[in-house]
Amino acid sequence: MSGTCRIAPRSGVAFTLDRGERLVVTDPEGSQVADLIAFNRHDLREVISNGRTLDYEETIRLTAGNRIWSNRSRVLLTIEADSVGMHDFLLTPCSIDTFRHFYPDKPLHHGCFGNLAEALAPWGIDADAIPVAFNCFMNVPVAADGRLSVLPPRSSAGDSIAFRAAEDLVIGLTACSAYASNGGTFKPIHYHIDR
Amino acid sequence: MSGTCRIAPRSGVAFTLDRGERLVVTDPEGSQVADLIAFNRHDLREVISNGRTLDYEETIRLTAGNRIWSNRSRVLLTIEADSVGMHDFLLTPCSIDTFRHFYPDKPLHHGCFGNLAEALAPWGIDADAIPVAFNCFMNVPVAADGRLSVLPPRSSAGDSIAFRAAEDLVIGLTACSAYASNGGTFKPIHYHIDR
Repeated sequence: MSGTCRIAPRSGVAFTLDRGERLVVTDPEGSQVADLIAFNRHDLREVISNGRTLDYEETIRLTAGNRIWSNRSRVLLTIEADSVGMHDFLLTPCSIDTFRHFYPDKPLHHGCFGNLAEALAPWGIDADAIPVAFNCFMNVPVAADGRLSVLPPRSSAGDSIAFRAAEDLVIGLTACSAYASNGGTFKPIHYHIDR
Repeated sequence: MSGTCRIAPRSGVAFTLDRGERLVVTDPEGSQVADLIAFNRHDLREVISNGRTLDYEETIRLTAGNRIWSNRSRVLLTIEADSVGMHDFLLTPCSIDTFRHFYPDKPLHHGCFGNLAEALAPWGIDADAIPVAFNCFMNVPVAADGRLSVLPPRSSAGDSIAFRAAEDLVIGLTACSAYASNGGTFKPIHYHIDR
């Protein structure tokens, strides 16, 4: 077991997670989002896929017991524990383009997308290869008519979600930079790995 | 204007669509699904993205007036007309893996995913580059608890959906191969291009 790591507000990190290891993502202050992506470390073109996951798991409300599948129909991560029960796997990481689109009056920021691209560059993973992220704690209800909204996360201080790696992975993980997804505040994210 | 083309049951095609051209996808017999994907022809790493589209359009029920966005936050297609109003942009194309998963007692088939991979190979687009498709006429309701189901399409014979290209594109398009998505039947899909 390693110590707890802190992701500063509006930033992102990348690290390896070996098969069998457990990654715990914690919202230390509450109501913050962490975008998570995962690549097969031995073949980086294999990556998590929201479409495959939603297809096989038959729900958009992924929680403990659900698996995160790759574009090659293999399980990369299993959700082992979840104290919140509301996460999003529909929306892409916020980016400079989403800031222009949704927050035209606010300062531009390269967002979780830019943070992930920077953090993953040392692995040779470029921006075009970044898939839709599993957005831990992000609260995106779907109305009966299909409309999506982005509400403050339901997570309280100390809430967490835990993933078990089914393969050797490269993980990208952020403390979200967008206004809507975290209720207008920017907070850190904590994580630790049980090795 | 070119003539009507027919996609045989359980097969797929790829073709170019120039900026400004209009693609009309028709369900000639009713209750059939057509998986559609689109790449920027001048830079094939730019491709339609369900995550970007759902984010910017703020709905999962895309219909006339909605746009289909790329992974680089640019519009690739606009939906100009739609006589059905129920399509899916959550689930990946059926593949040999989904046949193993969902239909273990039925003969294996490489599915829309295999058909798209074959059709796009001449452009140098490989299977790993195939994104979540815009599944024309596919009927995937989301229950209040997030559960997804795949119901027979609501399309009747002659129903159609029309797209206007915002860029020069390579299009992949199928007549779906899966049992659930088309109510257990395999039927052709028609399309034509207004040039």
